[in-house]
Amino acid sequence: MNSRNGADYSRRLPLYRRVAGVLEAQIRQGTFRFGERIPSIRASRSLHRVSRTTVLQAYFWLESRGYIESRPQSGFYVRIPFSQLVPEPEFRPVTSIPRVVGLKDTISEILRRVDGPPMAPLGTAVPSHRLLPNKKLNQFIRAVIREVPHHSSRCEPAAGSESLRRQVARRSLAFGCNFSVRDIVITCGAMEALNLSLRAVTTPGGLVAIESPICYTILQAIESLGLRALEVPTHPRTGIDLDLLERAIKKYKIQACLIMTNCHNPLGFIMPDNRKRELVEVTAKHNVPIIEDDVFGELSYQFPRPRTAKAYDRKGLVLLCSSYSKFLGAGFRVGWVHAGRYARDVEQLKSLSTLATPNLPQLTIAKFLETTAYDRYLRHLSAVFAQQVQRFSLAIQNYFPEETRVSRPEGGFLLWVQLPAQANSTKLYRRAASENISILPGTIFSPSRRFDRHIRINCGNPWSEALDHSLRTLGKICKEIC
Amino acid sequence: MNSRNGADYSRRLPLYRRVAGVLEAQIRQGTFRFGERIPSIRASRSLHRVSRTTVLQAYFWLESRGYIESRPQSGFYVRIPFSQLVPEPEFRPVTSIPRVVGLKDTISEILRRVDGPPMAPLGTAVPSHRLLPNKKLNQFIRAVIREVPHHSSRCEPAAGSESLRRQVARRSLAFGCNFSVRDIVITCGAMEALNLSLRAVTTPGGLVAIESPICYTILQAIESLGLRALEVPTHPRTGIDLDLLERAIKKYKIQACLIMTNCHNPLGFIMPDNRKRELVEVTAKHNVPIIEDDVFGELSYQFPRPRTAKAYDRKGLVLLCSSYSKFLGAGFRVGWVHAGRYARDVEQLKSLSTLATPNLPQLTIAKFLETTAYDRYLRHLSAVFAQQVQRFSLAIQNYFPEETRVSRPEGGFLLWVQLPAQANSTKLYRRAASENISILPGTIFSPSRRFDRHIRINCGNPWSEALDHSLRTLGKICKEIC
Repeated sequence: MNSRNGADYSRRLPLYRRVAGVLEAQIRQGTFRFGERIPSIRASRSLHRVSRTTVLQAYFWLESRGYIESRPQSGFYVRIPFSQLVPEPEFRPVTSIPRVVGLKDTISEILRRVDGPPMAPLGTAVPSHRLLPNKKLNQFIRAVIREVPHHSSRCEPAAGSESLRRQVARRSLAFGCNFSVRDIVITCGAMEALNLSLRAVTTPGGLVAIESPICYTILQAIESLGLRALEVPTHPRTGIDLDLLERAIKKYKIQACLIMTNCHNPLGFIMPDNRKRELVEVTAKHNVPIIEDDVFGELSYQFPRPRTAKAYDRKGLVLLCSSYSKFLGAGFRVGWVHAGRYARDVEQLKSLSTLATPNLPQLTIAKFLETTAYDRYLRHLSAVFAQQVQRFSLAIQNYFPEETRVSRPEGGFLLWVQLPAQANSTKLYRRAASENISILPGTIFSPSRRFDRHIRINCGNPWSEALDHSLRTLGKICKEIC
Repeated sequence: MNSRNGADYSRRLPLYRRVAGVLEAQIRQGTFRFGERIPSIRASRSLHRVSRTTVLQAYFWLESRGYIESRPQSGFYVRIPFSQLVPEPEFRPVTSIPRVVGLKDTISEILRRVDGPPMAPLGTAVPSHRLLPNKKLNQFIRAVIREVPHHSSRCEPAAGSESLRRQVARRSLAFGCNFSVRDIVITCGAMEALNLSLRAVTTPGGLVAIESPICYTILQAIESLGLRALEVPTHPRTGIDLDLLERAIKKYKIQACLIMTNCHNPLGFIMPDNRKRELVEVTAKHNVPIIEDDVFGELSYQFPRPRTAKAYDRKGLVLLCSSYSKFLGAGFRVGWVHAGRYARDVEQLKSLSTLATPNLPQLTIAKFLETTAYDRYLRHLSAVFAQQVQRFSLAIQNYFPEETRVSRPEGGFLLWVQLPAQANSTKLYRRAASENISILPGTIFSPSRRFDRHIRINCGNPWSEALDHSLRTLGKICKEIC
């Protein structure tokens, strides 16, 4: 630190900027390192001998510049300032034509490899079990067994257990809705919710507008149901391009739009509320249903969690799908769907596909949702993911070639990485696999295989030396093949 | 007892017949009543002062006449002699034309009523939870939680948990197969197994040969997948009419046959082994896959349990589906399918429909299957069902109009009742519902609504005064509307 400059500078500035300046310098110098907690407001008050308001002003100033971030009920933590981040992935508003997905075999082959247990787990979007509330859930399982000892002999209604549906309805206020219990259908994970929704609103061979990029599981579902897909470019910050979407709706007979509005997979953004409203208006004008995938919505880094597009649905045309797989555990296979005017169709399709969802997982999750511990847990987990995503982001920035671009997620635990122009993600994925590192190549995130210089990185595992090493290796391979 | 006749009669007969005669008379007089245990072999030896062989001969003679039945590891029990039973439902070998099922709304309406909790539960095929091993299963759940505390955070492979698949493979010897673990796919109940199998072997609008009568859930699945059905008459003792089936295969482009070979729902028969072999040969000749539904196979009253048609499958054309819902509990939603040459397709469809089956129910069932307690439990439960079915059968015989015919199940807990010619099962079902008795009308067991004078009765609940009263009421309504 240049003390003379610092001193001169601070004298001309208001008090809060002086405090902020000291902290800024400390962060820049590494006194407080990335991910560390800076002194509490009380501690800073006595340290700098200023008022609480001054400290708060200073912290807000630092936060607005991206040096620190607040975590609810925890404090302020050092983050990477925006100005020092690499750019976000590019957005190209290109138009597409309808097409059969045709990625079935490619995806299967890749997933077979990715599933291998000894791999560094940067591939599939599954968080580490060490971060999930297994112990708590097992306590709830024991309680359910005690209270409903014959849970296993009763097949609940196709729509799901009343107690879980009540919790979903109660919590729907958090994302701008006010669900009635009877319109909610509990499913075997979001995968079934998406499948039933697609089946309810499409006919075989029908056309579905999808985001580009989009999670490959959605592409697989569309393909397996014999549907065709039309890609609409998705902006890494504002979401699906609404002009191009409306043009597509006017040009083609689109039976449904499949859209992820919150903590997008793979891009990580949260679609701004006004864009969500616009999206619903545009599609409702043409009576096109939206299948909204909100599986990462609860993992938003901001609190309270963002609204859904469903919140703006006036015509019952939005089918909102979600699940507990990404933050309670995928082994439970419990998801849900509110299908608006298609609720009865989805309920019937549910009963004809899997009859009902297993009881015990439903009752267990309902028990957890009843508690305030659930909210505390969710906030804690989101904060952990926020930190991990930054940690991974920083490592990629350090180890990858210079023109690499990285997404700036607002929730979830995924990073979307755009490699330099010469890169080929399939080649990178193969080389990485041979080094026992699993990543997902961007090619499987689009039917036109548009993202051949992109990869998706799972940051759902606690940071470790081994992961650091894997990312360094990945960066090295990247530099070699670019 | 006419002692003179008895004495005269017995003097001219071999010793074992004399012993049998005494017991026959006792049964006829009601000294031993229906469902009661007759003296053990040891007790009869000392009672009649004859050899063990003589007692055994006597018991076998009584058994062959239908007076008693042996239950493994339990003894001999009084049953209704065949000669005193009402006739079985008739068989009419009529041909049909392909058609869209078109029963969606009728079935939904009926099931909505049937599901009502205060009804006498003679409708859906769900056994009483009081007969199921809830306590034991809860013990296994506790054990799984202890041994695999993070069961909920891991999503097992789409094909299912290795431990359960190993148990299915191991036990496949019992029904004449020898499965490899890697060809088994665990599903969310048999309903998903049937759905995935249908999707694997058909194309939209395709034609499926089905039995007539057939369980309505299969008809619903066919309808919801946009397939058409062709009814082939099923004989109440020997199963689907193979001549008519082959003729249909030659005449129409049939993509699959859906057949229940063991403990048929609703007819209750077990298809003889030679007919199973013939069935596989006929369909294999024309390369038509068979989807074999074995959900009741484990509930056969005979021991060891019967073989499956899959046992005769040489070309990998039989897709065998089953589940644990009918004897461990439908709340677990765990079934499985061995799809022969379609195993990989079914596995992929599974991963795209529900990703995987919930872990905990799979691991729990696997734990139970490892034990010999499981075999003991199954044998006990089958014996209980055999007795209940006879009890219900007897009541129907007593309370219903004279020309009523009743099926003679060889397994499971369902009765198929043919009412006199003037009867209308839909009318009966409505009147019964108004008396808070749920039954299923025969009309929903055939796309051509062929069985309009039939009803299906669930005998899966322990006999009680209330059930006796319900059947008496049902018989009264029957007599009124005939």
